[in-house]
Amino acid sequence: MSGTLHVVGMGPGDPELLTLKALRLIEAAPVVAYFAKRGRTGHARRIAGDRIDPRAELLRFEYPFTTELSVADPRYLAEIGIFYEASAARLAERLALGRDVALLCEGDPFFYGSAMYLFDRLHREFPFEIVPGVTGMSGCWSAAGVPFTHGDDVLLVLPGTLDRQTLAARLAIGDAAVIMKVGSNLAKIQAALDDAGLLSRAIYVESGMMPGQRIMPLAEMAGQAAPYFSMVLVPGRRRAR
Amino acid sequence: MSGTLHVVGMGPGDPELLTLKALRLIEAAPVVAYFAKRGRTGHARRIAGDRIDPRAELLRFEYPFTTELSVADPRYLAEIGIFYEASAARLAERLALGRDVALLCEGDPFFYGSAMYLFDRLHREFPFEIVPGVTGMSGCWSAAGVPFTHGDDVLLVLPGTLDRQTLAARLAIGDAAVIMKVGSNLAKIQAALDDAGLLSRAIYVESGMMPGQRIMPLAEMAGQAAPYFSMVLVPGRRRAR
Repeated sequence: MSGTLHVVGMGPGDPELLTLKALRLIEAAPVVAYFAKRGRTGHARRIAGDRIDPRAELLRFEYPFTTELSVADPRYLAEIGIFYEASAARLAERLALGRDVALLCEGDPFFYGSAMYLFDRLHREFPFEIVPGVTGMSGCWSAAGVPFTHGDDVLLVLPGTLDRQTLAARLAIGDAAVIMKVGSNLAKIQAALDDAGLLSRAIYVESGMMPGQRIMPLAEMAGQAAPYFSMVLVPGRRRAR
Repeated sequence: MSGTLHVVGMGPGDPELLTLKALRLIEAAPVVAYFAKRGRTGHARRIAGDRIDPRAELLRFEYPFTTELSVADPRYLAEIGIFYEASAARLAERLALGRDVALLCEGDPFFYGSAMYLFDRLHREFPFEIVPGVTGMSGCWSAAGVPFTHGDDVLLVLPGTLDRQTLAARLAIGDAAVIMKVGSNLAKIQAALDDAGLLSRAIYVESGMMPGQRIMPLAEMAGQAAPYFSMVLVPGRRRAR
């Protein structure tokens, strides 16, 4: 009988924002797997802290790239596919031996992120359970103290990699928006928000719910760099009640 | 010194999906407040179960309506405003006396929901802390086992109350979508998804992560009624990696 693949949402960064279920599964898992960049612990591993059983086998899946390549870059697609295949194979080996696996995911497993690419390769063969987590964006708007979506609001979640015109056009049809993957897209995002008349409402959040958290009006970020792990929040227009 | 208003996300329904922080605050709170419909316990109270201190004061905020009125109905707006004012006043009374309050919210506090209307009336006067929770939609796509948003996907969260043409137009520009407030909008939503060529990808989730959970392809829901507390998921187009 094979082990079960538990895909475990770790929340936005504060270990206290782990769910009870996530904690139970992490503490009990004989195999704990997580993603990390070269030379880094990785947020998921850091959030787990000392809750992992000392006897558990730790599997570290280290990304083949340290910087963000375009998802359209053929070199990226080739290498990342190999990486996900190899990582899934390492999990399949343990699952086939009857060992349960906890695959740790920042935030919520099925809301952006890498674990889905391993799930895709394993879910037909092995039993699985998905443990949802608090998303990074929930962490950010909560840390910012900004009520975000009300009533009949339309929410858009947009990647900062979209071109300026498309960003502005998308923003125009929503009530609230979250723009992820700010990084080197910061100036373009500010311009698109300005085009859409939303710059004054936009809030910049860096490292939400993690050490080094910074929250400020986006307009005050003129000319600065932003790390990849930052986002821009545009709260909905609040209809009074 | 006044008490602190803790606005506590309770997650999508499974008590094990409470965060560690939510549990700690619920157990410690001298005053616990929650919303409910007439004759119902309310999801937030149910999720808290027996974790509330027996000595805590329980404040039940009962909605003045048992059915969903249009948010544009003047009668609704007048009465709901009175309701939120009165509820906020009950909290302000305790906070002013130095008592901490845990205001329980289904899902995530600042992602749709009623607690924000009390927060609006209290946050300038009293210290507060927002505890994010797992959203209903995260609970639903996790229960459905459906990886939802990848890479550069655009996500739309739409209210089912939008007219058919607007729904179809919005759906056309996103990669993934969540349609909330299905209820009596079911047939219209199915038609809009069909217009947008998405009906075959759409998944219906009722009472996600709660007793009575039902998950099925939306196309199989022809002619049936849906409760208000249900949603439609349209997973993103997965670009292979």
